[in-house]
Amino acid sequence: MKSLSAAAIAEMVKGTVIGDAAKTCTGVAGVRDAQDNTISFVGSKKYQHQLETTAAGIVLINKDLEKEPLNGRTFVVCDHVDLAFAKVLEFFAPEPVVYAPGIHPAASVDPTAKLGKNVHIGACAVIDRNAEVGDNTVILPGAYIGVEAKVGSDCYIAPNAVVMFRCTLGNKVVLHPGVVIGGDGFGFIPGPQGLVKVPQTGIVEIGNDVEIGANTTIDRARFGKTRIKDNVKIDNQVMVAHNVEIGESSILVAQCGVAGSAELGRGVIIAAQAGVNGHITIGDGAQVAGTSGVVKSLPAGAIAMGTPAEGQREFMTRYTLPKKVEKLQAKINELAAEIEKLKAEK
Amino acid sequence: MKSLSAAAIAEMVKGTVIGDAAKTCTGVAGVRDAQDNTISFVGSKKYQHQLETTAAGIVLINKDLEKEPLNGRTFVVCDHVDLAFAKVLEFFAPEPVVYAPGIHPAASVDPTAKLGKNVHIGACAVIDRNAEVGDNTVILPGAYIGVEAKVGSDCYIAPNAVVMFRCTLGNKVVLHPGVVIGGDGFGFIPGPQGLVKVPQTGIVEIGNDVEIGANTTIDRARFGKTRIKDNVKIDNQVMVAHNVEIGESSILVAQCGVAGSAELGRGVIIAAQAGVNGHITIGDGAQVAGTSGVVKSLPAGAIAMGTPAEGQREFMTRYTLPKKVEKLQAKINELAAEIEKLKAEK
Amino acid sequence: MKSLSAAAIAEMVKGTVIGDAAKTCTGVAGVRDAQDNTISFVGSKKYQHQLETTAAGIVLINKDLEKEPLNGRTFVVCDHVDLAFAKVLEFFAPEPVVYAPGIHPAASVDPTAKLGKNVHIGACAVIDRNAEVGDNTVILPGAYIGVEAKVGSDCYIAPNAVVMFRCTLGNKVVLHPGVVIGGDGFGFIPGPQGLVKVPQTGIVEIGNDVEIGANTTIDRARFGKTRIKDNVKIDNQVMVAHNVEIGESSILVAQCGVAGSAELGRGVIIAAQAGVNGHITIGDGAQVAGTSGVVKSLPAGAIAMGTPAEGQREFMTRYTLPKKVEKLQAKINELAAEIEKLKAEK
Repeated sequence: MKSLSAAAIAEMVKGTVIGDAAKTCTGVAGVRDAQDNTISFVGSKKYQHQLETTAAGIVLINKDLEKEPLNGRTFVVCDHVDLAFAKVLEFFAPEPVVYAPGIHPAASVDPTAKLGKNVHIGACAVIDRNAEVGDNTVILPGAYIGVEAKVGSDCYIAPNAVVMFRCTLGNKVVLHPGVVIGGDGFGFIPGPQGLVKVPQTGIVEIGNDVEIGANTTIDRARFGKTRIKDNVKIDNQVMVAHNVEIGESSILVAQCGVAGSAELGRGVIIAAQAGVNGHITIGDGAQVAGTSGVVKSLPAGAIAMGTPAEGQREFMTRYTLPKKVEKLQAKINELAAEIEKLKAEK
Repeated sequence: MKSLSAAAIAEMVKGTVIGDAAKTCTGVAGVRDAQDNTISFVGSKKYQHQLETTAAGIVLINKDLEKEPLNGRTFVVCDHVDLAFAKVLEFFAPEPVVYAPGIHPAASVDPTAKLGKNVHIGACAVIDRNAEVGDNTVILPGAYIGVEAKVGSDCYIAPNAVVMFRCTLGNKVVLHPGVVIGGDGFGFIPGPQGLVKVPQTGIVEIGNDVEIGANTTIDRARFGKTRIKDNVKIDNQVMVAHNVEIGESSILVAQCGVAGSAELGRGVIIAAQAGVNGHITIGDGAQVAGTSGVVKSLPAGAIAMGTPAEGQREFMTRYTLPKKVEKLQAKINELAAEIEKLKAEK
Repeated sequence: MKSLSAAAIAEMVKGTVIGDAAKTCTGVAGVRDAQDNTISFVGSKKYQHQLETTAAGIVLINKDLEKEPLNGRTFVVCDHVDLAFAKVLEFFAPEPVVYAPGIHPAASVDPTAKLGKNVHIGACAVIDRNAEVGDNTVILPGAYIGVEAKVGSDCYIAPNAVVMFRCTLGNKVVLHPGVVIGGDGFGFIPGPQGLVKVPQTGIVEIGNDVEIGANTTIDRARFGKTRIKDNVKIDNQVMVAHNVEIGESSILVAQCGVAGSAELGRGVIIAAQAGVNGHITIGDGAQVAGTSGVVKSLPAGAIAMGTPAEGQREFMTRYTLPKKVEKLQAKINELAAEIEKLKAEK
């Protein structure tokens, strides 16, 4: 059974022990579930109170939380508790599940498909004609790689994920289960006999080191490309419409949506359930709060919230309006009284 | 052809007939589509007007709606019309679709997987290595049960649902099509070379009698467990993030989302398209209105609405603010006039 | 390599050339990505500025944008630039991907299923017992057609789409990847031993020429039918609950949701991320703005926005309230000053 002493942890994470350096634990747990034999962490002042209540034997804490250990528990003070705890987690992590190279007999690989070295193709996965799969890529059961699609090397395509025809993935791309890359963009024009479909003849192009969460959908371009650039991280159930461009290292959190032809810069963060209108631009490093609806372009570094989205100050002014109106009400009553007085005094 | 008389219905649902007890119908229909030969229902005063317009031959109604039958139609008055009508529906329900025990020759069951008695495994379903499936469980075509995952007995796993490695389901669990259990949680930390993935080494643990709607996603814990407790009912396209805990008999309605490490108590209701922030607590029996965004913890029994979510009174104050401001405007004009008068009178 | 001259384009789209009729391009591109050898378009005054910056060799523009061509570029002026550009796109479109008639040896078609002429059934697609598939329909890998389900002719069922038992699709229906037709409706009643499931014994009935986007879910009726009528177009990740009725040629944009038993008329537009309450009616041609939450019925032609949704005027009054309150504040200060003056003057 694996175990770590406070001293060993301190060495591992370049931290300092407060309390019993010999204290040893055999696992990790959240601060709520922790026992005396488990290691936990508290990362920010906001959760400092949990230091009083947790039963964890060893607690990793951030420098700014440094304090005397309580009820005989031991602290390890770190510069960056998240990264530090990640190391401890790695140490205790269960044996990773490995998918060895090889093609399952129940997989269906078209004879015209090109497979790299050491690929794993699971049962009932389908690689369609002229598709290409790079070295060391893992394609799990029920996943589909479409006609003439290209998947790079060292990719992980989870069960029942779909990559439609001609779309391209870079290297080290992760698609979680149920992801759909390259469904048709949504384009219809009112015609004499009703809605006429606008042909969606483009593709989706995904860069390197991109991770895409379960059941997220990214539509192919009307023409040209829908682009997801390097290092973009997308959560579950996100909707990216046709011809959108997502800049490097941007983050799209769960259930948000980006409408057609919107252009996001680098390092943009769109929080959960937010929406971005079509044909607008979001500048580098801009951040959109959860559930917000962004209707016009945002400059680099902007912070937007609410629907229609506005700056933090405008948002707070709006949010605190009821209080302000109450004060006005009081002031008005006061003035009315003074006027009565003046009238009486005449 | 099945048929029921008003008398028979009254006996079946312990209700009382008003009108022609011998009146007989051969089917059920919604109040709008109903014909003279179909049975329908009206459950609440809100829909009482439909009693005037429906063509239904027999109408089940709640006690509080009791009234003379109209245009020769017959009423059956019940204590609980929903439960009563459910019984009638059951009577007329089409022959249920049965999936007989057996493993389809096109299914792919790893030799190391353990299957219980009387399981049904559909075509192109995949049971991966060391996975376990309990007695009488039905796994339909294209579904995937991952490495070392455990599915209890009497479960129903619909087509193309996915249970990832090591996740566990209790008994009588229903997963509708496209559900994803155990995709990675969404965790990335800014590092020197860009975003660093936080390993997601935990699992999802689902209790007994849980039902999960189509294309809903529940992420595995960063470490430890994401917990869905007994009797929880989740609708379609709901997002439950890593390390969330959903208490017994809670209800999550379509397209809502619960962010990482949030803790919901028992009997909580999160309505459609609402969002719950990470790391907060929702007390037992609390209810969140549709589309609301809950940003801070709620006590037991709380009712929250709006974004950021607040109590019903605060919400209504905010909602009716335009009217209030109009009144202030009028009052101010009035005072201005009086002041003019006072000045003139000097 | 395909190429088109400005003159040829003008003839193709019944437009008029401004500039060099002999100018020839070899492809199409968005106005941002365009080169001198590519054709692009600008459709509305809103994007007129792009005419100054684009490098496109030929630009299709709407009549109302007519102007002198700039820096030697050539314009083709059209009545309807969208339809016109669609024709040009078609000309340059890559060879379409064709799925030839035939049943893949790795497909699984139940012996009792009825297949029409010239159907394509992909690898690991499953056609369950007594299901019917019409002529010329394409069913791609991993898709599932359930027990006694009916799919019309000339349909396109994308990979991993699911049609559950007894549901019916008309002709020329398109289901994109991951679509789920006929998951159970969400209905539970509090009973003595907790939540009791309301049996969902109805079906989903989809008309002709309906297109449904990736990972959208449409639930089967509690009883009777959930109805999607002819020519309805639904985007990705839309949720349509049980017993909903969507009128002809209505449009549901990405991530919106329609709750149980709501009835939408013809030509209704529900924009992205909006929600429609259950048991209400949306009149013909009504439009709901993105992210709005509609809580009560809307008449034909209505425009609704905000949550709870209201008319445009009410919405703007609410939206501009902070400014109005500021003005009141100023006015009040003014009156206060006058009162002081009056008091001093006594």
